[in-house]
Amino acid sequence: MSGTPDFGSKVFAAWREAAGPAWPAYTGHAFVRGLGDGTLPREAFLHYLKQDYIFLFHFARAWALAVVKAETIGEARLAAAVVDGLVNTEMSLHVEICGRAGIAEADLLAEEEALENLAYTRYVTDAGLSGDFLDLIAALAPCVLGYGEIGLRLKETASADTPYREWIDTYAGADYQELCAKVGALIETATAARLGERPQDTPRFAAIADRFRNATRLEVGFWDMGLRGHV
Amino acid sequence: MSGTPDFGSKVFAAWREAAGPAWPAYTGHAFVRGLGDGTLPREAFLHYLKQDYIFLFHFARAWALAVVKAETIGEARLAAAVVDGLVNTEMSLHVEICGRAGIAEADLLAEEEALENLAYTRYVTDAGLSGDFLDLIAALAPCVLGYGEIGLRLKETASADTPYREWIDTYAGADYQELCAKVGALIETATAARLGERPQDTPRFAAIADRFRNATRLEVGFWDMGLRGHV
Amino acid sequence: MSGTPDFGSKVFAAWREAAGPAWPAYTGHAFVRGLGDGTLPREAFLHYLKQDYIFLFHFARAWALAVVKAETIGEARLAAAVVDGLVNTEMSLHVEICGRAGIAEADLLAEEEALENLAYTRYVTDAGLSGDFLDLIAALAPCVLGYGEIGLRLKETASADTPYREWIDTYAGADYQELCAKVGALIETATAARLGERPQDTPRFAAIADRFRNATRLEVGFWDMGLRGHV
Amino acid sequence: MSGTPDFGSKVFAAWREAAGPAWPAYTGHAFVRGLGDGTLPREAFLHYLKQDYIFLFHFARAWALAVVKAETIGEARLAAAVVDGLVNTEMSLHVEICGRAGIAEADLLAEEEALENLAYTRYVTDAGLSGDFLDLIAALAPCVLGYGEIGLRLKETASADTPYREWIDTYAGADYQELCAKVGALIETATAARLGERPQDTPRFAAIADRFRNATRLEVGFWDMGLRGHV
Repeated sequence: MSGTPDFGSKVFAAWREAAGPAWPAYTGHAFVRGLGDGTLPREAFLHYLKQDYIFLFHFARAWALAVVKAETIGEARLAAAVVDGLVNTEMSLHVEICGRAGIAEADLLAEEEALENLAYTRYVTDAGLSGDFLDLIAALAPCVLGYGEIGLRLKETASADTPYREWIDTYAGADYQELCAKVGALIETATAARLGERPQDTPRFAAIADRFRNATRLEVGFWDMGLRGHV
Repeated sequence: MSGTPDFGSKVFAAWREAAGPAWPAYTGHAFVRGLGDGTLPREAFLHYLKQDYIFLFHFARAWALAVVKAETIGEARLAAAVVDGLVNTEMSLHVEICGRAGIAEADLLAEEEALENLAYTRYVTDAGLSGDFLDLIAALAPCVLGYGEIGLRLKETASADTPYREWIDTYAGADYQELCAKVGALIETATAARLGERPQDTPRFAAIADRFRNATRLEVGFWDMGLRGHV
Repeated sequence: MSGTPDFGSKVFAAWREAAGPAWPAYTGHAFVRGLGDGTLPREAFLHYLKQDYIFLFHFARAWALAVVKAETIGEARLAAAVVDGLVNTEMSLHVEICGRAGIAEADLLAEEEALENLAYTRYVTDAGLSGDFLDLIAALAPCVLGYGEIGLRLKETASADTPYREWIDTYAGADYQELCAKVGALIETATAARLGERPQDTPRFAAIADRFRNATRLEVGFWDMGLRGHV
Repeated sequence: MSGTPDFGSKVFAAWREAAGPAWPAYTGHAFVRGLGDGTLPREAFLHYLKQDYIFLFHFARAWALAVVKAETIGEARLAAAVVDGLVNTEMSLHVEICGRAGIAEADLLAEEEALENLAYTRYVTDAGLSGDFLDLIAALAPCVLGYGEIGLRLKETASADTPYREWIDTYAGADYQELCAKVGALIETATAARLGERPQDTPRFAAIADRFRNATRLEVGFWDMGLRGHV
């Protein structure tokens, strides 16, 4: 069904289900609806862009922690590619997009980190410090795959004249969707290697799903912050 | 059977068995035999004492990492008590013992850390950074429980006139044996909470047992270093 | 001047000054005023107590990370004593206090962690993962010393009939004030060992003071959450 | 002077000097001389290659920790590029080189990690866990820049018929030397940002130089292990 893709991962689907109402609160947030129908105030979008630059830096740190915690070369390779893509490509693109929107790079660097922003990324790095590779991946997944889901849905449902088409196309696009498929595959192999073929029957499943659920709650907070339009 | 106590933990017994020849190479090392029959050169023992002071500091750091990684208050409590005991009691006792042996505290602080010493403790802290609470506990266990096993065996078998009686009594004594029993119980509950009731049938068991085996190999290196008598 | 004690640490005083309006926003928060004049709704206080139990667990994890990062035995000893005090004494007292307030231990364990709560402690652990011992201590300081300052001020200014007298006495009391003095001394020695005698003239000072300021902002969020009275 | 390049970093030169005899013991080790004059037994070289594969994995983990600990986007970018290069390029090349030498990839994966190998990389990751970005970089530097120095010297001095010409050309080559220059520049900027313009006059300099010295000692152990020709 369109709108709820699994990105090839039954484990992700199970985590999403275990997250309960937090998942639709995130992927169907007013901020997201505003991107689709074009009613999101430009001020809120610009505020979100500035905060997202800081977010990307710390999110890359969290993916780098996944390399630190990798137990196979395959796990390390995907995580390393994501880190490199985030800091050496995405952040540069972000500066460019912000530039077109009238935000100078100096403004990005001078921006105060909102508490909801800080809360999210630090929760993810602590999940890595506290748990193992899988705990960390579960905390990284809502952002990566949620944006993939949102992108796909908005691509189908967005107003023709929304000014946020470029944002939607980024996350609905082939490059980003391919990343989602790779992360979906990583979730499957990393889970099978640690919890076996029936992960939901193991004692760790609930704790790992809770990492996913908390990160999802923090995504809701991030949208709230975006909508508020200021730190 | 005396000499191979399980400290109440079947999981520990399984790890020990999986460690193969590394375990007797550690617990029956020439250094250990020399403590028992009194043939260990005093020079080697003093060198060991000095290195052990540095070891205790980093071993306490590793137990502190177990508090960082604890997922229940019970796990945190035991690990915190071990850390506090190590730095606020054992290290002071160690200074006292070294003092009686003619080693001033300034000498302890000036001692160069031997590579075998450094290898061991850093492997343990990295096990914690890389894995979860259980990976870390598996790397901490050989030292704690191996000394408990050695102490018990030497108490029964040591020569009446070995000059290392105080060392033997420390690890064979009620306080240390009680610590071993607590750590044995922690291994059981921490394993059951993460791997369930049949941990050996889970995919993670081999990797965790390998942490235990590597730490055991590093204990052998530590005795080798002690026997060598210099950095 | 009473109300703004330095706990023997000029460095702490400098961090507090660098935190600007965030510090009085924390120590003079409506929640704090409500504790003093007794107008704080009991519901809000009970909510705060429940969240604080979860906070103490993660705050102890963060202090344990300070042991992991200690570079001297003195640094390790104080941090280890704080960790042990938190998990083996304070958390038990907390359960007892909650029990008298009608909150069963099962309720504490079942409580959902509020986002403001989670944000705070995870920011602190990440400060430790990211930086060195001093970065971590700067992020730990606002809670420890801020409560010490609040306790002293409320002791002098609180209404005679506030129902929160026990809370005030805890933090104004000799035991807690002694802890503050020890932490103040630790801040001085840890700073001198790393930044020298004129820390404010070094390039790292601003970044470290920013850790303190961010943790202070997160304290404000914690009081906001408490006042709200629900997750 | 050829043979002792600074890679554009005065700080590196100061660390190298502070390492004393450990540095020439590493860069002029019998293993290195054997690579140059061709007398290194092939068995020892093959053993080294197999261990080096495991080393690269953990060394990449340590560079990933540098991304986790980066405080600027520039620091994160260089470290991320190194990690990506290590796991997504160098390790594949390594498999290819080993393949030509008759070592199958399955043999690489089955190889037992030698204690000297394990000691080195875990010391580096612990330097990152314990200290800040600069502590970690100081522990990473001896490998990166020492190989650059060795490559340059052997290129000038090696026997025409040494069978280890490909190894020498790799580290004397433009790509590797360019990496060394980038790491040299990183050491300069990371040091200036934290210790200012006169790092040797700051209290932290000795501790950081000691990280460099210990990692250098561990390089000596790695060559010893290589020369021994077995785990």
